[in-house]
Amino acid sequence: MAMRGRVSLVGAGPGDPDLWTVGGVRRLQEADLVLYDALVDVGALQRVTKAQCFCVGKRARRDSVPQETIHRLMIRAAKQGKRVVRLKGGDPFVFGRGGEEALALAMAGVSFEVVPGVTTAVAAAALAGIPVTHRGVASAFLVLAGHTSEAVDRTLRSVRPNTVSMVILMGIGSRGKLASRLMAHGWSADTPTAIVCAASTQNAWTWIGGLAQLGEAVPPVGLAGVLVVGEVVKVSKALSAVSRVEQASNEVSYGRKG
Amino acid sequence: MAMRGRVSLVGAGPGDPDLWTVGGVRRLQEADLVLYDALVDVGALQRVTKAQCFCVGKRARRDSVPQETIHRLMIRAAKQGKRVVRLKGGDPFVFGRGGEEALALAMAGVSFEVVPGVTTAVAAAALAGIPVTHRGVASAFLVLAGHTSEAVDRTLRSVRPNTVSMVILMGIGSRGKLASRLMAHGWSADTPTAIVCAASTQNAWTWIGGLAQLGEAVPPVGLAGVLVVGEVVKVSKALSAVSRVEQASNEVSYGRKG
Repeated sequence: MAMRGRVSLVGAGPGDPDLWTVGGVRRLQEADLVLYDALVDVGALQRVTKAQCFCVGKRARRDSVPQETIHRLMIRAAKQGKRVVRLKGGDPFVFGRGGEEALALAMAGVSFEVVPGVTTAVAAAALAGIPVTHRGVASAFLVLAGHTSEAVDRTLRSVRPNTVSMVILMGIGSRGKLASRLMAHGWSADTPTAIVCAASTQNAWTWIGGLAQLGEAVPPVGLAGVLVVGEVVKVSKALSAVSRVEQASNEVSYGRKG
Repeated sequence: MAMRGRVSLVGAGPGDPDLWTVGGVRRLQEADLVLYDALVDVGALQRVTKAQCFCVGKRARRDSVPQETIHRLMIRAAKQGKRVVRLKGGDPFVFGRGGEEALALAMAGVSFEVVPGVTTAVAAAALAGIPVTHRGVASAFLVLAGHTSEAVDRTLRSVRPNTVSMVILMGIGSRGKLASRLMAHGWSADTPTAIVCAASTQNAWTWIGGLAQLGEAVPPVGLAGVLVVGEVVKVSKALSAVSRVEQASNEVSYGRKG
């Protein structure tokens, strides 16, 4: 007897449902069960799907469903023949523990697929007018997570300062410490730096300044976002100097003149 | 007199129109003129839009429309009041010269916006079962372009070998030289390495092997794709060992046992 049960690991992008993929939307329309992350637009989700929808986390410093429980929920539903969508912020395989979920499904013998999404690492920067690569400015970019200082130090030891664009996810809460760490590893105090919160949503907020001023920036409480460190941040200033960029940011504040 | 002319810089993702974004599709539906890259699915494009569509490049080693001409075409059409979509493979701001196009539009006083896309750097890896980050394996990833050896050497000098996942775009043609360069910079000969061609399309093709064997791999001629170098490539092998992953790859060949 064929089982139609399966799990789709789907990326929801940075926030705006306009940045969901066509394939992701179709999986949601066909789903019986949706397990979604905290940053997903719930109103849009309910307009798209008739599936049962459960929020399974995750936001910094709040309780969320343990990873093993998420695995168990997905596996059980798929084995009951349900079409499950695991809807994850950004791309499922960029700091989303998507690899772990894929392995858990594979080990349980559950059929699954990955539907990539728009990664917040690139999109948040883009929506603030910052290309992570730019001819003559940066020919490579590095993406890391800022929530564990051990991993940050390990990565900073690996990379020569001020040579690549750096995008730090989950680092807004520790922005002051991160700036100190970067400077301790040799990054210039005046490296152009951006905070981009809630990119693509109505709450979008951007700050641009020097690395040394990062700790003094005061982003709105409770918004997720990215830090961008490197000369590419200047492109955003160049863009806003010559035109009103229609970027997602409702507000851009500058940490210093420059 | 209000001008409705504007340009949307839209990311088309790695290939499959299923990975276009909802907002990108809407821009195409509303467009008067579409200037698209060579890797875009033309059939899908013509089904979605009634706009005039022109291919403006770019593929390795083929003539394409000069960058300045693309700027001029966009600016002229927008100033005539047209809604222009500049449809770019992957994400517009990841090695797409999107930043240059944005600056040219801004300097010409043309209204524009960026609609991020699914970047091939992350998606191609994901569709081959490779998460660019994975707990306990890689907590950062670096993205670079492999088509200019000067930029590659500069980046390799910046990064301590075998410390981050590395994704190389536009590097398949020079894979042998790239492998030698990486090893000369200290990367282990047995670093797990993947070639992922034409991810998300019917022509998808994946090779997995050791870094030292990269030059011996024989990908199909004429397909674009990415190289992934790092321990995360092993996750793909772990996935395929326990299950048939429904990945986009029609064919996976292994360069060596491991």
